[in-house]
Formats: sequence, C-alpha cells, structure tokens
Amino acid sequence: MDLSHPERLSAADAARAIAGGALSAEQMVQACLERIREVEPQVQAWQHLDEAHALAQARARDADRAEGRPLGPLHGVPVGIKDIVDTADMPTEDGTVLHAGRTPARDAAVVAQLRAAGAVILGKTVTTELATYAPGKTRNPHDPSRSPGGSSSGSAAAVAAGMVPLAIGTQSNASVIRPAAYCGVFGFKPSYGLISRHGILKCAPSLDTVGVFARSIADVALIVEQLTGHDENDPSTRPRARIPFERTAAESPPLPPKLAFVKTPVWDRTEPATREAFAELASALGAACEEVPLPATLAEAWDWHRTIMEAEMALHLEREYELGRDKLSASLQQQLARGREITALAYQRALAKVPRLLEGFDELFDRYDALIAPATAGTAPPLASTGDPAFGTLWTLAGTPALSMPLMHGDDGLPLGLQLVGRRDDDARLLRTASWLQQQLAD
Amino acid sequence: MDLSHPERLSAADAARAIAGGALSAEQMVQACLERIREVEPQVQAWQHLDEAHALAQARARDADRAEGRPLGPLHGVPVGIKDIVDTADMPTEDGTVLHAGRTPARDAAVVAQLRAAGAVILGKTVTTELATYAPGKTRNPHDPSRSPGGSSSGSAAAVAAGMVPLAIGTQSNASVIRPAAYCGVFGFKPSYGLISRHGILKCAPSLDTVGVFARSIADVALIVEQLTGHDENDPSTRPRARIPFERTAAESPPLPPKLAFVKTPVWDRTEPATREAFAELASALGAACEEVPLPATLAEAWDWHRTIMEAEMALHLEREYELGRDKLSASLQQQLARGREITALAYQRALAKVPRLLEGFDELFDRYDALIAPATAGTAPPLASTGDPAFGTLWTLAGTPALSMPLMHGDDGLPLGLQLVGRRDDDARLLRTASWLQQQLAD
Repeated sequence: MDLSHPERLSAADAARAIAGGALSAEQMVQACLERIREVEPQVQAWQHLDEAHALAQARARDADRAEGRPLGPLHGVPVGIKDIVDTADMPTEDGTVLHAGRTPARDAAVVAQLRAAGAVILGKTVTTELATYAPGKTRNPHDPSRSPGGSSSGSAAAVAAGMVPLAIGTQSNASVIRPAAYCGVFGFKPSYGLISRHGILKCAPSLDTVGVFARSIADVALIVEQLTGHDENDPSTRPRARIPFERTAAESPPLPPKLAFVKTPVWDRTEPATREAFAELASALGAACEEVPLPATLAEAWDWHRTIMEAEMALHLEREYELGRDKLSASLQQQLARGREITALAYQRALAKVPRLLEGFDELFDRYDALIAPATAGTAPPLASTGDPAFGTLWTLAGTPALSMPLMHGDDGLPLGLQLVGRRDDDARLLRTASWLQQQLAD
Repeated sequence: MDLSHPERLSAADAARAIAGGALSAEQMVQACLERIREVEPQVQAWQHLDEAHALAQARARDADRAEGRPLGPLHGVPVGIKDIVDTADMPTEDGTVLHAGRTPARDAAVVAQLRAAGAVILGKTVTTELATYAPGKTRNPHDPSRSPGGSSSGSAAAVAAGMVPLAIGTQSNASVIRPAAYCGVFGFKPSYGLISRHGILKCAPSLDTVGVFARSIADVALIVEQLTGHDENDPSTRPRARIPFERTAAESPPLPPKLAFVKTPVWDRTEPATREAFAELASALGAACEEVPLPATLAEAWDWHRTIMEAEMALHLEREYELGRDKLSASLQQQLARGREITALAYQRALAKVPRLLEGFDELFDRYDALIAPATAGTAPPLASTGDPAFGTLWTLAGTPALSMPLMHGDDGLPLGLQLVGRRDDDARLLRTASWLQQQLAD
C-alpha cells in the first residue's frame, strides 16, 4: 500500500492502514484537507468545512486507538455529508437561504451510524436548492464549465476530486446516479427502505432514498454495510438481519450472471455518443447480455413519479412556499404550485402503480441478475443545469437498487455512467454482479 | 350448562360442549337456523344463508371430531360474516346491486383463519351500501321500527337476536361500535393493523378495521385471538407474538384500573337520556373514574377523518362511480364527488395529523387504563338512517382499540352503549379492563 498520498487511498485501504497503525486518522484527514485546499477553489464542493473540527475528530479517533478502544470498520476514515443531512456539530442549511444558519440539535441516523463506525465527519457538501433542481456552486472536477449533476452535487464532486474517499447523498429522482455519472465515480442508490432517512430533509418521502459515493465497489459495500438497519423513526425501514455487503460484493457469482440491457422509454433522449458506448458495451459482453424490450406502457411511470414527487413536495416544502416563496428559484416555485393542484385521487392512483410496477420487474429479475441502462443522457452538461434526471426516475419510483458505474467515456473524454439495476431488496447481490461486470470489462 | 337452547350459549360454552361431545356442531347450527327461521322475517339480518351448506360444514366438523382430528378453539361454532368479506363458497355482494352475483374465488384472510379454528361460516350478513351510510334491509331486533345501525348492520342484529353467537364486521368510522350499541351487544374494533383486511372490500385503507360482535367479553376475546397475526397481503399488519386475549381478558387487573370519562368535542350531540346515563355511570364508579377534558383543538379531527375517508373512497370506489354512478345512493354519489375534489395536499396533511393525535392520547394512557365515552348520541334512530357515526370517528382515526359495551339503557328502554377506549396495540388489556368494569357495575 502506497501511503505517500493518503487522500488517494480507498476507504477500505485507509481503514486498514489506520487500524494497523501504518497511518493515523490525523494524517489521513490532513491529506484530505490539503487536497481540498488545492482543488476546492475550482470545484466548490463544500458548504461547511471546519478544518480544526475535522482534525479534532481525527485526533480523537487516534486517541481511541492509542487507548485500546474497539475500532469501527470506518475508524478514522473521512466522509462528506450532503448538506440536507442533519449534523449536531455543523450547520445544515439545505441549499436555501431560507434555512441559513440552521443548526440541528441532533445527528441524522446515518451520521450517528457513521460516527459509531469510527468515521470522521469531514464536512457538509453542497446540495442543490432543497435537494431539487436549482444548481449550487459546485463545478465538475473534470471540467469546471460543466455541471457536477445534482442534487448531491458536492458529494459526487468531492469524491471524484480526491478530496474524500466516501460521501453521503440522497436521491428522489436521479440525485445520486446522475452526479456520480457526470463526475465519474460509483454512486449507489440502494433499495427504498434500506437506510434510515431520519434527520434528513423530507422532500417526497415515498421516493427519498439515502445513497453513497465512492471510488470502488468495495468502498460502496464497506459504507453501506454500516448504514443499513431498522429505525423506528423511519417507517420505510424494517427489522432484518445484517446484510454482509462487503463479503458478498467481494465474492464471485456462483453462476455467470445474465444481464438485460433495457433501453427504457427515455432512450430517445440519449446522445449519439451514449448510444455508441452502449453498443460497444453490449458487443463486449456478448452472450452475457441480452437486449430486452420493456413494455411501452411503462412510459407513464414518469408521470406517476412526477405526481408523487410534486404532491409530496407541496406538503413537505409548504412552509418554505408559504413564508419565503420569493426566495425560492422560479422552477421550484412552479413545481410547488403544480404540486398544490394535484388531487388526492391522482396522487393515490400514482402510488398504487408502484406495487404493480415491481411485479413486472420481478418477472424480469427471475430471468436476469441485473439490468443495464444508461445513467444519464450523455456526459455532464454546462453549469446552468444539473442535467436531465429522467434516467434515474424509473428505478427511484420502483425502489430498486441502482449503481452508477464509471466505466465509459463520451466523445468529449468526460465520464459516462453505466447504470446497473437489481431486484428490490437484493442490494448486496447487485454489488457482487457489479464487481463481476467491472472485471469482465477490464479483462 | 343448559343445552336445551344451544343458540343461547356463548361461543365459549358452545365450543366447550362440542369439544366435549355434549353437543354436536350439527345440533348447534340446527338450533341457530331454527332461531333464524323464527326471527329473520322481522330482523332481516342475512344477505346469503344456505341452510344445507351450513349444516354440511357442521357435519364435517362433527366428522373431524369422530375421526380424532385436532379441534380448533371455535370448532363447530357458527359465525356470521359481513357481506363485504370474501367467502370462496358464498357470494359477496358488498351491499350494492353493482356487485350483484359477485362470487370471489378465495376466502378473505379472516374467513380462512376462522375455518382453520374450526368455525362454521353460517352465512353472510347485511351490510349498508358498500359499507358506507345508505341502509340495507336489516331492522333493530329490539324494535323493528328502529335502525340496527351500520354499516355492519346484519352482524350486530344477528348476534343481538340470538341467531349466531359471533359475527364479523368492519369499521372505517363507527360501523362496529354504533350497530353494537344500538343492538345491545359487545362490538369490538381492535387497534388498526391487528387483523388482516386481505379479501375485504377496500373503502378507506388508512381507516378500515376488522371488528367483531359477541354477547360477552370472553367471546370477543375468544374470536379475536384467532384473527390476529401478520399477513403480508395487508401492509398494516406486522409480525408479532401471539396475544393471549382469552387469558388476559379473564384475569383480574393487578391494580384497580383508573378510568377517564372523556366527553369529546361531539358531546353536545348526545341526547338528554345519554347524558343522564353517563352521569349515573360516573357516580356509580366514584373515584375509579375522573372526567378529563380533551383539548378543544381536537374538534378538527372530524375534518381530518372526513378528508381521509372521502379521498380514499374516491380511489377505491372509482370504478363504481365511473361505471354505475346512477345505481349508487345520492349520498354516496355526493361523498365520492367530494372525495374527487380533495387535493393531495389536504389529504397528506390529514394523514400527517394521526401520529400527533396518538402522541396526545399516549400521555392520557400513561395516567389512565382506559377512556369512557358514549358509543352513540342515543338509542337507535328510526330506520331511515343508520345514525350519527361521530362517536366512533376519533378512535377510528387514531387506530385505538374501542369496545362498545351494552351496559346502559335509554328512556325508551332500548340499549345504550358505553364505549371503552384503550391504548393503541394494547387490545388485550382493554378487554381485561372491560371485564373489570362490567363486574363493578354488576355488583
């Protein structure tokens, strides 16, 4: 293990080096802070970053080790947290001036879990306005004229720029998958209900999902394994046995996986370079991947998603709309105004579609281990927009796990994401299939 | 045990007599059928009753016993089933000509549970139109010019008239509590989520609750104990240990219970005789019962209930509204038309009130074992209406268990119900408190 640039280590390697004494948590955090000083002026990934506080946490973790206390799987590893996730020791401002100066009294469930695993909460990363569409200040680390994607803009960019090995994001449409694809890192949106959302800004609770960013599948597995579990404060979670993510992701599949390439009803929005990349991918995978048509009626799913999202945002962002409308972006104002007009009938109808959608996918997952689909229409667009979220919509609505993998590039040399989708609640196996796929394409 | 009139036996006594061989299931069912022949022309409690099929079930149960097969706790005991609960061997017509001739392929979960416990499914009892407000043909057994209440009209009347010892009903507002009170039997609406609703007409799934009718608390406990449990087809249920209803209901409370008499914001709708009866009750209970004021803001709860009920009915009765509107009662047409206009915002807001409502009640249940409230405004009204449901609304919305106890009478000599309400998910203890209360008032 080369310890000369700790900020370049994977989270797993860093945790091992820290646990073994080859590296201190302080050295690890110091290296990340140096990298941040170097690239942050260009990338602008951080909303709140207090170097002294980050170093104090690191030194406390080093003291734990010196005193022989038990070490967690993320002991001393720095993690970036999207600024809609509450932290008791840092502001949480939700990407809007309406919440400026907000200092929560408690950690969100995921932050508490990360601290329990020994992680250093490095700082808060930039989110778009209230985790919706209006961009924050962050730029794409690969090209500062391009968007990092959103809404988890800072988390994706920070991991991509080597500022931190791991970061937390959230997705209600494409807010993990899209920035991961544009920034060229792994972005994992697990099954709906796998990770507690307690202490995180509520936008659309039927869709809101916590996700993670990392530079390897092993690191995705490492952090997700710490975050799962039942939380009675989040009714979407339920009691279940601990899932061995790390072990499963590292295993070879017992049989060669079968993959289905699904173009989905938004395929016609993809850019020519994306289509070429997927044609090459299909040909490289050969018999392991079949193109499978999805029913045309599935096109309605984007309407169901919008109905649910806008109706629920109208409730959960009602105070912001009623008291501070003029401080919201025009597009969010319009979304909230539309949401207020949706009838309970249309809303319930849309919600009632989800179980039927899942039944249809279940049949597909009886035949295929995972689905391959584009993560975005193409590479990162110019800064004015966070890009088209349509490629995340279907899997967010269905609550199926989805992983954006940085395995392709566009004509412009920028990263292009491959989205791998698994059966709902079969998250660890999706990561195992992803490891296999990565190896196939590397060979 | 006097076996000369088996139809007058409690379910528990009948089950014991049948298990011990003192009575056959056929004799039990025959006695009930004779009683039905006698009083049904006046009461009109049954929608479907096939004597031969009922007797065939009874003979099969007798054969089980003769062949030494294990006997369930309700072996040979006849039960009446509200005609919105699916039965694979009898029509289920939901109280509307729109569903005439409907013959489900499968039993509802509760019917399957009853059969597994050895019960004889005697027949289907009259429901109001689609379990809402427009009356069916049933009359009050105590006075044929009066309503039996609704929507579980036939179930309450059949138990009250001695036609069957047990019956199944459902409640989304006051559809168990009210008919039990008007007919002078015990009616138990358990906690929301205690009993599966799979295979039962959906009206308002956030409110719909299965309940039971019996002539004693012990019989309520006997049947409810057979019906609880997790059903993955009903997301309101959850895995939990079997609850010893019979044993708990028969136990003496370890400490003398403390009761709170709560007038609720609809107290001003009670009739003078009801107020007198409750004044006498409070004085009879002395120090065991305190009058406790509820916050005036609770009056909004009736609006929240109506919003949820009408919005959900608009979805679940949409097909009936769109395809057969002219065959629905004018009042149901109006309800459904109103439901279609409710916004998703108002609907979600109303749903979001329920957890807060429960928190308020939880504080009350830290101090009192149960709450006493009227079950209805007064005794049964004339046949044209099933009566004011407002006295069931609050407890249905909150999902707290409620028991109507036939312990009082109005000036007209007709039954008047006392409603005993317990902490949510503490159903067995409510029955224990109810047994204690019944004994206090008998002494």
